[in-house]
Amino acid sequence: MSNNKKFVEEITSREEDYTKWYTDVVKKAELMDYSAVKGCMILKPRGYAIWENIQKILDKRFKKVGVENVYMPMFIPESLLQKEKDHVEGFAPEVAWVTHGGEEKLQERLCVRPTSETLFCDLYKDIIHSYRDLPKCYNQWCSVVRWEKTTRPFLRSSEFLWQEGHTVHATHEDAEERTIQMLNVYSDFAKEILAIPMIKGKKTDKEKFAGAESTYTIEALMPDGKALQSGTSHNFGDGFAKAFGIQYTDNNNKLQYAHQTSWGVSTRLIGAIIMVHSDDAGLCLPPKIAPTQVCVIPIQQKKEGVLDKANELLDSLQDADIRATIDDSDKSPGWKFSEAEMCGVAIRIEIGPKDIEAGKCVIVRRDTREKIDCSLDKVVETVQETMDKMQSDMYDKAKEYLDSHINDATNYEEFVKAIDEKPGFIRGMWCGSVECEEKIKEDTTATSRCMPFEQEEIATTCVCCGKPAKKLVYWGKAY
Amino acid sequence: MSNNKKFVEEITSREEDYTKWYTDVVKKAELMDYSAVKGCMILKPRGYAIWENIQKILDKRFKKVGVENVYMPMFIPESLLQKEKDHVEGFAPEVAWVTHGGEEKLQERLCVRPTSETLFCDLYKDIIHSYRDLPKCYNQWCSVVRWEKTTRPFLRSSEFLWQEGHTVHATHEDAEERTIQMLNVYSDFAKEILAIPMIKGKKTDKEKFAGAESTYTIEALMPDGKALQSGTSHNFGDGFAKAFGIQYTDNNNKLQYAHQTSWGVSTRLIGAIIMVHSDDAGLCLPPKIAPTQVCVIPIQQKKEGVLDKANELLDSLQDADIRATIDDSDKSPGWKFSEAEMCGVAIRIEIGPKDIEAGKCVIVRRDTREKIDCSLDKVVETVQETMDKMQSDMYDKAKEYLDSHINDATNYEEFVKAIDEKPGFIRGMWCGSVECEEKIKEDTTATSRCMPFEQEEIATTCVCCGKPAKKLVYWGKAY
Repeated sequence: MSNNKKFVEEITSREEDYTKWYTDVVKKAELMDYSAVKGCMILKPRGYAIWENIQKILDKRFKKVGVENVYMPMFIPESLLQKEKDHVEGFAPEVAWVTHGGEEKLQERLCVRPTSETLFCDLYKDIIHSYRDLPKCYNQWCSVVRWEKTTRPFLRSSEFLWQEGHTVHATHEDAEERTIQMLNVYSDFAKEILAIPMIKGKKTDKEKFAGAESTYTIEALMPDGKALQSGTSHNFGDGFAKAFGIQYTDNNNKLQYAHQTSWGVSTRLIGAIIMVHSDDAGLCLPPKIAPTQVCVIPIQQKKEGVLDKANELLDSLQDADIRATIDDSDKSPGWKFSEAEMCGVAIRIEIGPKDIEAGKCVIVRRDTREKIDCSLDKVVETVQETMDKMQSDMYDKAKEYLDSHINDATNYEEFVKAIDEKPGFIRGMWCGSVECEEKIKEDTTATSRCMPFEQEEIATTCVCCGKPAKKLVYWGKAY
Repeated sequence: MSNNKKFVEEITSREEDYTKWYTDVVKKAELMDYSAVKGCMILKPRGYAIWENIQKILDKRFKKVGVENVYMPMFIPESLLQKEKDHVEGFAPEVAWVTHGGEEKLQERLCVRPTSETLFCDLYKDIIHSYRDLPKCYNQWCSVVRWEKTTRPFLRSSEFLWQEGHTVHATHEDAEERTIQMLNVYSDFAKEILAIPMIKGKKTDKEKFAGAESTYTIEALMPDGKALQSGTSHNFGDGFAKAFGIQYTDNNNKLQYAHQTSWGVSTRLIGAIIMVHSDDAGLCLPPKIAPTQVCVIPIQQKKEGVLDKANELLDSLQDADIRATIDDSDKSPGWKFSEAEMCGVAIRIEIGPKDIEAGKCVIVRRDTREKIDCSLDKVVETVQETMDKMQSDMYDKAKEYLDSHINDATNYEEFVKAIDEKPGFIRGMWCGSVECEEKIKEDTTATSRCMPFEQEEIATTCVCCGKPAKKLVYWGKAY
């Protein structure tokens, strides 16, 4: 018990210092480490395992909707990056430039991809000729580089892992349909697997992706009341197609420009999972994404039969495809309990001589710490049920938090006060002018997060300027 | 049938021009494409799918032997690269240098990783303190960059995908054991999954990895008689540990330097698969690695019931976890047959009205083109058996080729003649001097491929200088 305390005392409480709590959890659960290169992270085994689970599940869902994986080079020649005007303006200030290969100076600078629209376009212009070649739905899992001044683990770093899907379609409608379809893949995944509810909507022109016609977003709410943009899906219209010359002959033998989309999520999702679900005891992960779903912890493991029984349990869990481990190290049970809690093990099973005598073990949920006595012949199904319950409870809790942190404002006074006093999203009507977005940002640091799909008219005038309103917007401070 | 011919006529025969045949297969099967950056490849869906299968199977085998995945930054500060003398000398001439981040010139140049020993060492020095922290067995799947002057699809490119494992151990023996263990993981994988027999052995000092104490290799033989180094495993001893200060306290509380290994295979394996198994009709892949194991091709598909039956077949194959597709496009059956052959579909199933009437279909193996009549109620098991047979036949054929292309030479005249006239490996004794290796390379372009684990004394004197011999060596021209 004293060990237990000692272990947990090493992390700052959320109340004391939220930012420090986050960094402590990330470091103490051994998810990542900083590297010799400023702003670049090392994903350690426990952190990378979360990303592997994200990849595995999302990749299956992508393939189900007809997406194929490819790999594009990591370098983009400067001239290629410059082909689409808005795009280069958005990214050029934050890219890393390669100027030398070996001893020789390169004839043309290459940037390390900050995103790969230009490379995909350069391929698509060569392989798309006829309407029969459409649609093309390619995706890649890779890392990208954006030179950041200030960085935070998983949330913002100079290099990060992500996936980027790039699709080409015959018509604007087909592209729009795919844009929304992939946004829904993301929000369903966040809900069902990460237990995170998302606000879905469209970005304002000011906040959209460099080169996009429309950008759609999923926005999550963190416990400190800040929004986290967690995934985006862009409809490019035919802008890139015109810049790169991606044309096809339609079934009337007429030459047409293609329509394109792109969409991505990154290791930032890991930041969202950590913040939404964890607590002062450390990392808490929804069972569906937890690298370790169950840790069996033997009590008085030197007593005859305890380790045998514990290993028997482990085998039956693993046979049922549950990601289970055993902690049979020589640390004290109390230490093992708090270590399992710190590292985001979804469920621990305590089993000692007395339990074995009574033909039972104790199942402990990480999120609620609820203890469930379980007959030894029902462990697999009870663990399965407990994980299902935990998964849905964690979502419900996060949803309740989100719902109770959305407030409305109908005039500027209310708005400024709400941003200041009520952490979370503030719903407010908007006239559509970038000036109001800029004023709000300057006055409050809040930004327009999205125009939700489900529009309502909570007032008739803009929350900022008082002129006639066009759209309901979710506003908030953001990461 | 005329379509069939036309399709196949587009690739050069192996006899006519082996190099062009290889490039034709790679392009025509749509495995890869060149990109706007010289020497960098695009892996297209069919090529990347092979890599995904390699990854999936190898990764499972790595995890079974205790390897954990991580992700390290892609950049290495110049000062870090320089910490191990031999290592920097080996790699500095071929790395890409990042000099600017955004608009600013960097204080220190960063190289894009050509391999990540230095980054792993920089992490290990911080996280290894006690013998309890050992071993550490990390691996990452990523891309690396080595600025190459001449490139060939999959075999040599400026950026390529690979995995690099990096482990740390308490003793030299533990490190050596891991080095050999991983080499065996590679050669077993090549044999069982890729149907490629490998010669296993140790590299001479001249050919070993920059910074390694010993390098072990698996060498495959290509149909043009050239060797392809297909995977390597290095024992670093404590060289890197001393350069980076990776020390631990042993169980006598004494400070010791750690011992390290690294090991990797790359997309080069795809080049080996293509060359070893393919033919003038295009790509041929062993069923265990083929992205499409079965393609169902309906004949006279507009006749009633044909498509239904074909789709029924497809479903039953997919339900049995066989990677199956259907080609129900409006192309002619002949065209579909040759397209399936070109693209490396392991087995095609032909099913038309007459077959259905007779309650059967026709199973065609890609490698031998053998046709097997199969009752419709036995398709899944027959496909399964046929794939197993095909997999082992393909290995046997490759093994027979390898065995019949290993020749011995006992003096220099024999040796030079053999290298010239007998494509394949030449076995010859070696005195151990780098001068003989250099002379052989200059005279014949052949290099020492490895000193095989199974040593024999086929002569007592060096095949080059005639002095007393120390080792049996496999020599050959190499990619």
